[in-house]
Amino acid sequence: MAPIALLTDFGHRDAYVGVMHGVIASLAPEVQVIDLCHEVRPQAVAEAGFLLATSVPFFPNTTVFTAVVDPGVGSARQILAARTSRGVFVAPDNGLLTEVLADEEPSELVAVTNRELFLPRVSQTFHGRDVFAPTAAQLALGRPLAELGPPLEDYLRLPSPQPSIGADSAEGVIRYVDHFGNLVSTIPAAGLPPVASAQIGEATIPGPLRTSYVAVDLGEALLIEGSSGFVEVSLNGGDAAGMLNLRVGATLKLTFRTGGLA
Amino acid sequence: MAPIALLTDFGHRDAYVGVMHGVIASLAPEVQVIDLCHEVRPQAVAEAGFLLATSVPFFPNTTVFTAVVDPGVGSARQILAARTSRGVFVAPDNGLLTEVLADEEPSELVAVTNRELFLPRVSQTFHGRDVFAPTAAQLALGRPLAELGPPLEDYLRLPSPQPSIGADSAEGVIRYVDHFGNLVSTIPAAGLPPVASAQIGEATIPGPLRTSYVAVDLGEALLIEGSSGFVEVSLNGGDAAGMLNLRVGATLKLTFRTGGLA
Amino acid sequence: MAPIALLTDFGHRDAYVGVMHGVIASLAPEVQVIDLCHEVRPQAVAEAGFLLATSVPFFPNTTVFTAVVDPGVGSARQILAARTSRGVFVAPDNGLLTEVLADEEPSELVAVTNRELFLPRVSQTFHGRDVFAPTAAQLALGRPLAELGPPLEDYLRLPSPQPSIGADSAEGVIRYVDHFGNLVSTIPAAGLPPVASAQIGEATIPGPLRTSYVAVDLGEALLIEGSSGFVEVSLNGGDAAGMLNLRVGATLKLTFRTGGLA
Repeated sequence: MAPIALLTDFGHRDAYVGVMHGVIASLAPEVQVIDLCHEVRPQAVAEAGFLLATSVPFFPNTTVFTAVVDPGVGSARQILAARTSRGVFVAPDNGLLTEVLADEEPSELVAVTNRELFLPRVSQTFHGRDVFAPTAAQLALGRPLAELGPPLEDYLRLPSPQPSIGADSAEGVIRYVDHFGNLVSTIPAAGLPPVASAQIGEATIPGPLRTSYVAVDLGEALLIEGSSGFVEVSLNGGDAAGMLNLRVGATLKLTFRTGGLA
Repeated sequence: MAPIALLTDFGHRDAYVGVMHGVIASLAPEVQVIDLCHEVRPQAVAEAGFLLATSVPFFPNTTVFTAVVDPGVGSARQILAARTSRGVFVAPDNGLLTEVLADEEPSELVAVTNRELFLPRVSQTFHGRDVFAPTAAQLALGRPLAELGPPLEDYLRLPSPQPSIGADSAEGVIRYVDHFGNLVSTIPAAGLPPVASAQIGEATIPGPLRTSYVAVDLGEALLIEGSSGFVEVSLNGGDAAGMLNLRVGATLKLTFRTGGLA
Repeated sequence: MAPIALLTDFGHRDAYVGVMHGVIASLAPEVQVIDLCHEVRPQAVAEAGFLLATSVPFFPNTTVFTAVVDPGVGSARQILAARTSRGVFVAPDNGLLTEVLADEEPSELVAVTNRELFLPRVSQTFHGRDVFAPTAAQLALGRPLAELGPPLEDYLRLPSPQPSIGADSAEGVIRYVDHFGNLVSTIPAAGLPPVASAQIGEATIPGPLRTSYVAVDLGEALLIEGSSGFVEVSLNGGDAAGMLNLRVGATLKLTFRTGGLA
């Protein structure tokens, strides 16, 4: 039986996540449900997309990923179900799946419209409970995507900021700040020339990419290849985002040694 | 085997919830344990009662709901176990079960006193670990309520603020504010006449009840039937409680169109 | 099959914990995974050690405890796996296991070095995902410790502040502050003479040790034996740490009645 992974912006202060578990336990008591993350910033669709795309490779490829960051709940926005070689994805058609589907177009894509699979009474504000949870339970039990609703030709894609990588330098933006204050950029670390230094906000951070946080003195900023393969700005023993007063969207510019500028 | 649902004010910063899982895993390793919510405001008994009552309908009706918001831990307060058609409920006798038992009086009600079922050493401050978790495990394994302790005639009930609903207007209070800042009132949405406008704090919010958050402009307040069936005050794309500077207890007054006042 | 208990400082804002669950579900789908705690203050190794040591007695003694509070990730620090009668412990060799191994030296102790058990690509910053999770999965499936790496003679131990307990008084420090604001000291409650009063910060708190929070008036501070057996400073209906403006490291001095000082 396929596991279900839940990704939402519901937080933990309310019972919303617990109730989704209750619905799934009612319909598919044997199915394993994994909480991928529920602290996506409220309505931060692109952030949810990043977390999903970077998490998927580490789950069983039978997983039913169910992502509910859904500011348009109750409106005419559609709900998607998509299948790739990495699993099945259920999410609002608001761009959340852009990144996870960028590497591999779905082999199946449908609109989730079959009300027979939903809870008998569908509220206007909590489709996580009334639509997503029961749909995920059905998929985990093996129901074919084709029974969820009609096939779709396409889905909403968010623009994804592409880094520019030259011979002398690279430029990207911070796309994610984690709980530790690590700043994750859009610049992939693989194949970069040796980095002489980085500029971000008011700060200049010396290269090269380090191999551990403790490679610099306590309280010093550093550059490192993060766990998703992107260049990150971190602080040994502290919170880089807080210390450098930076957030998502900040520009990171790397200067390479090969450019002779160092 | 019956699942267990846990509802506490223990939060996630400590290991209290994890330890309850450990106790249950020790006694009943096959039992599924669902975290309903652990971020109830410390010692907020009525809030826990609201979350429980609005969550129960979405769980299997075999669930052992175990609710530990227990400022009187270690005192003479009793612990209740109650059975209804919706499941079994274990909670301190402090009013927490008022709302969930309001619709259906329990078919069985006992005081949890059988120390043979508790951990060998019962602490003064953590009955969640020493009493509630092992009792829940026994119930999930099928032990009859009658073996937990003597039958009770009655239990503590909290006063529940009733909305007043007239022909021209309705008045209630905010009973819950969720993670998104949605303000949940005591006024049931079903059967209300068309709403002309609402007054809450300094704000006037135009009706009618909307069918989605995006039915109004970004940043605008709106009225909507929330997922538990009560009228909620929300903000499209934002935090209504924060923007309107409102909290639990605020008065919400609805004026109906049928009253000719609009 | 042995359960896995996870203890980290990863928090819930990111998908780090969810991804560890994904890795374990990929390798050992039948294994139960319990979240012991993920809100350890970032890089607070001693705090993690305290939470682990006080939680272990309440878990099955087959549990694979996997603790990742690891500021030295990516550096030359080793990863330990240790077996005692209470379970198997996997943690960085940074002192985290000091307290849990203080009562019982491990019967087996190895360095976790066998890269065949890790994920194929080991990142520099997320060994929780790439090393700890797959190692825990293997242990839960029954793999012998000896296959993880070479035996170790010793491990890093943190100094643990010992309370001084005399005939007239005792002195210790606050080692932990929980979500409710309870201040947990290093002074064991068992066998103490009757306490006349306590001094902490600017406050004097009258004894004796109480048997419940409600034994004093609402808003009053009190002394009580906490759930781990240590003397705690609490407040009836409130947050002692906040009200008394105290934190980890504060000195708590108890004066006994037997000393004739009361």
